[in-house]
Amino acid sequence: MELLDALSWRYATKRMNGQKVPEDKLNTILEAIRLAASSFGLQPYRVVVVDDPVLKAKIYESACPQLPILEGSHVLVFASWRNITNEQTDRYVSLIAKERNLPIEKLAKLDKSLKDFISTRTPKQLANWAARQAYIGLGFGLTAAALQEVDATPMEGFTPAEMDKVLGLEEQNLHSVALLTLGYRDEEKDHLVKQKKVRVRKEEFFVHNGY
Amino acid sequence: MELLDALSWRYATKRMNGQKVPEDKLNTILEAIRLAASSFGLQPYRVVVVDDPVLKAKIYESACPQLPILEGSHVLVFASWRNITNEQTDRYVSLIAKERNLPIEKLAKLDKSLKDFISTRTPKQLANWAARQAYIGLGFGLTAAALQEVDATPMEGFTPAEMDKVLGLEEQNLHSVALLTLGYRDEEKDHLVKQKKVRVRKEEFFVHNGY
Repeated sequence: MELLDALSWRYATKRMNGQKVPEDKLNTILEAIRLAASSFGLQPYRVVVVDDPVLKAKIYESACPQLPILEGSHVLVFASWRNITNEQTDRYVSLIAKERNLPIEKLAKLDKSLKDFISTRTPKQLANWAARQAYIGLGFGLTAAALQEVDATPMEGFTPAEMDKVLGLEEQNLHSVALLTLGYRDEEKDHLVKQKKVRVRKEEFFVHNGY
Repeated sequence: MELLDALSWRYATKRMNGQKVPEDKLNTILEAIRLAASSFGLQPYRVVVVDDPVLKAKIYESACPQLPILEGSHVLVFASWRNITNEQTDRYVSLIAKERNLPIEKLAKLDKSLKDFISTRTPKQLANWAARQAYIGLGFGLTAAALQEVDATPMEGFTPAEMDKVLGLEEQNLHSVALLTLGYRDEEKDHLVKQKKVRVRKEEFFVHNGY
């Protein structure tokens, strides 16, 4: 499908039919998320991929009682870094040096920018900033799913503390911020299937050259 | 280009060559952003499209001294709602009723969810939540630009208060949270053109079934 057709076709699917998203499509969606842009390129979040039925049932029971969790085939949990430290940015700078075959000194400016950025923000501001980067990834994942004709339900309506417990995220310095369930719409059960997509008119959504 | 090829091709372009993004490509990118998912479908943000050279120069001078502002052809300013009130959600619920030709009473549950959501959060939490929705749109815009083979530079490194002043955003209940500059890479001047894209390995980025 063409991009705009795919984006018009997609919607936040409320009922899925249990059909499994094939491996190649899943991998394309995941790779799109991994390739997503992030501030400094730091990727301060991880994506937990859940397809184990027992774990999905646990998530449904304790953290997110919404049917796509059970009826979709994969639940992607976007989890951003709780704390951001120099250790993490050092690792990132080393990764760039390695991948681009550069002496680490060549990256002194980036290294300083990262450290300045971190040292001038509160832990709460940093956590919020990391979460926003995860939302860019969520946007990439949603677009990729639509292009693969895979249905996807983005969800914020869950209990992050419970989700973190079920997935052991705190121990990994992660905090769940958003979900993306992948699967296929149930055309009979989902009353939203035939509903018109509602968006603000472009004349209102876009403001040309300010005022 | 195929999706993953396009996402591998794109990078945060530091130097652009001044070439103008044609109207049809621009419109596709904007429409992708307008179609982006958001929590409740509320779209609590707007996108300011700047192509006026005088205004771009003002932005460069007072809010964001980065060359893509001048060398790109369009600057998209993602600006989220400062305050979220029942008036705004009422308008949204009315829009759904109109677009889907439904009596407003049929939307009582959504109306209540929206009002409960707003009344149980501080203005700061709501502003952060609105900003996150804008970042989903940013993800859609970045993906759409890559598929159109248009270069795009996402930017957080600007002074929001100055940007808001230049564009008169506060008066419109908006607050700038991220930029996306559109244009074409300058292959000679941009040292990043030939650099390998660096991303965390997928074995590290994805966590399968928790722990």
